[in-house]
Amino acid sequence: MPQPKLQAPDALRGAAGRRPALRVDGARLLGCLAELGKIGADPAGGVTRLGLGPQERAARAFLAELCTSAGLAAETDAAGNLLVRRPGAASGAAPVLLVGSHLDTVVQGGRLDGAYGVAAAVEVLRVLHEHTVELPVEMVAVAFANEEGALVQAPFWGSRALCGALEDGLAAEDRAGRTAASYLAEAGGSPERLPEAVWPPGSVAAYLELHIEQGPRLESEGVPVGVVEGIVGRTILDIDITGQAQHAGTTPMPARRDALVAAAGITLAVRELAAGRALCTTATTGFLQVSPNVTNTVPGHVRMTAEVRDTDAGRLAVGEAALRRECARVAADSGCSVEVRVSSRSRPVATAPALRQVIREAAGALGLAQLSLPSGAGHDAQIMARIAPVGMIFVPSAGGISHAPAEDTAPADLVHGADVLLHSVLGAQAVLPAPGEPRRRPAHRGGQNTAGS
Amino acid sequence: MPQPKLQAPDALRGAAGRRPALRVDGARLLGCLAELGKIGADPAGGVTRLGLGPQERAARAFLAELCTSAGLAAETDAAGNLLVRRPGAASGAAPVLLVGSHLDTVVQGGRLDGAYGVAAAVEVLRVLHEHTVELPVEMVAVAFANEEGALVQAPFWGSRALCGALEDGLAAEDRAGRTAASYLAEAGGSPERLPEAVWPPGSVAAYLELHIEQGPRLESEGVPVGVVEGIVGRTILDIDITGQAQHAGTTPMPARRDALVAAAGITLAVRELAAGRALCTTATTGFLQVSPNVTNTVPGHVRMTAEVRDTDAGRLAVGEAALRRECARVAADSGCSVEVRVSSRSRPVATAPALRQVIREAAGALGLAQLSLPSGAGHDAQIMARIAPVGMIFVPSAGGISHAPAEDTAPADLVHGADVLLHSVLGAQAVLPAPGEPRRRPAHRGGQNTAGS
Repeated sequence: MPQPKLQAPDALRGAAGRRPALRVDGARLLGCLAELGKIGADPAGGVTRLGLGPQERAARAFLAELCTSAGLAAETDAAGNLLVRRPGAASGAAPVLLVGSHLDTVVQGGRLDGAYGVAAAVEVLRVLHEHTVELPVEMVAVAFANEEGALVQAPFWGSRALCGALEDGLAAEDRAGRTAASYLAEAGGSPERLPEAVWPPGSVAAYLELHIEQGPRLESEGVPVGVVEGIVGRTILDIDITGQAQHAGTTPMPARRDALVAAAGITLAVRELAAGRALCTTATTGFLQVSPNVTNTVPGHVRMTAEVRDTDAGRLAVGEAALRRECARVAADSGCSVEVRVSSRSRPVATAPALRQVIREAAGALGLAQLSLPSGAGHDAQIMARIAPVGMIFVPSAGGISHAPAEDTAPADLVHGADVLLHSVLGAQAVLPAPGEPRRRPAHRGGQNTAGS
Repeated sequence: MPQPKLQAPDALRGAAGRRPALRVDGARLLGCLAELGKIGADPAGGVTRLGLGPQERAARAFLAELCTSAGLAAETDAAGNLLVRRPGAASGAAPVLLVGSHLDTVVQGGRLDGAYGVAAAVEVLRVLHEHTVELPVEMVAVAFANEEGALVQAPFWGSRALCGALEDGLAAEDRAGRTAASYLAEAGGSPERLPEAVWPPGSVAAYLELHIEQGPRLESEGVPVGVVEGIVGRTILDIDITGQAQHAGTTPMPARRDALVAAAGITLAVRELAAGRALCTTATTGFLQVSPNVTNTVPGHVRMTAEVRDTDAGRLAVGEAALRRECARVAADSGCSVEVRVSSRSRPVATAPALRQVIREAAGALGLAQLSLPSGAGHDAQIMARIAPVGMIFVPSAGGISHAPAEDTAPADLVHGADVLLHSVLGAQAVLPAPGEPRRRPAHRGGQNTAGS
């Protein structure tokens, strides 16, 4: 149903001059999310829709069909990304405003992580199309393939492919040793044509992503909109502790080299890096494995991890250095050998200040409170920052829970978030270079962000 | 080769009056141990000769054949215990001096734990037989079945059967659910006649056991003989910690309920019970399991054990109470729930002071230095203490290592230990009631010692 054409700035305000006229169709958005939640619904709870697997493909097919029915043009690229354009907008070389997220999940994940951002991008594109809003910088919706890397161990697959940063991605494997290449063909992509999925320099004017927070801050502060300042960098360390397995009854305490006692000291030191010493934002030991792990044997060996995250690269380095000193101290105290090895490093990424301001103004125009916060989780936006300025919008996560069946967000918050996205797309027009203008680069750039979310 | 009959006291000294005349045949003892070490030799290293399994039966058959060839009488009782007597000594109701240990091992255990005490007992009996030494209290050698409980989860099987303390042992199972009863029949015992394995009250005058120390004290102090003061009691606690599994990147440190951080605090507190606060002799966390155990998830759940050991029941209770207070403190600090449940309790057992003196004098007469020490590991002696005074002799363990392929003791120490056993059997004659005398009871008695070694 074509309506009178609107220029983007007009679309920001209604007839009364102050209230925004354009809104997403909230019921339609929630309905789309409900349908997506059925694809890969796990009998054990939650949604299991693994990247490059059949459920991700089914979700992409569902959305492509929905978009085509709505008069939009949907295509799957060689990397398995879904790209949706308005029919008249495929105008060649002009840079576009890319908006989206991903459709895949972790095992028994939630129905909103990723899918919400894709469904909202499609909804925004439908609204723009229905209202025939003319945009100087055209919007393209995207569903990136395999962001989580839960099946094929190559997270951020789709965004890395688009940025030309997939490197040896086709050689990545699942835990059984099957390669990404064989998954990609079944998922509707093309290993042979993968280089065609790379977008040329200058083709992305900016990238916007709407996502659930996956943490508790917005909920606990009662604020519906989060303006993401940046995405944390992360350093993951593998720590290997070797003591001596001994009989727990016959080995006097001073004669022990107890690898688990050493690991316990390191676990508490890891927490202190962030909790007590505030050297970095978060510090976590999530994995710890004891050997031989028998009640009456002093543990001889422990493998564990420590990860530190921060939006500042300098603080990340300080946190890592402090942790290495703690490991050396524990080794000396315990008589165990402690080896520390970097498993992966990703650098922090800042969002573009101009896009943060656009999001703040969009929320303000909609009468929605907002606060600025970092993203502690990884997102496709951190990859897209390699080639374009990026902006991210968060909505509250109930209980801060994510990557779990209980992941949830209030329907009103989901609709508000999509409205903020719509008005950010409109508002961004004023800060993005018009086609032909020289591109501005974002103030901060990321790199090497390929270490999972 | 019969020799002139010796009365026991004469056997203690040689013709010169001060040097003991009788010695074990060291080469024969070491040869027997070498042969036993081949039975159940594990291709992956060490010896795997599980209680009530075919290798234990083969070891018993080997020893029975060896004893029969030497003119001794060997029989297997209904519980699978091997009993060896001198031919004229099966004189009915007179109490006997029982001497032995066990033939079974843990998975990939050593060749000495248990087997040494049995081989030495058989060697001593052969020497007594060859020299036709008359003993007022006749010696019987025993190889108790399934002391370790590594296959069928009923440790101290044979000694419990003999003491009438096997309770529901026949219902015990391996980890696949196969019952002890079915194993026992294949092992050469008899589930139906199991009550016949119980010895009547008063039939055991005393029990002696020679064993490797399984700890480092004798080696580090350069002393070849240990006089065991008692066997530690042990309390094992299962500790269950429930926090909240959360995203490691998005959950602020103050919002966490990290079950592994709580477990680390408890692990260090367990060690401190013995190492810093000296409330009990040893305190160990040997088992710890994290869930979901993923690098980027705050651990939501930990299962762990704590075990405390001491030769004093009061100190055991103090240690347990202190540990429970530490768990409550950690629960309050961490926001996690911490459940503590007793998994098993065994009470400390003291050896008989008169037998300790006998062992000290035997070592002294042989010119061997000795020191008194507790046993931190469990032994059949702690079960036998229910029905008779018990004595234990230790020899050094190389590096304190046991329950492992590297378990070892110098050949000279093995021979010295057997000589001390021989002269303890002779010396005990003076302190044990002659047949017909009222039995003396040991000063300390054990009970409920069925919780593994």
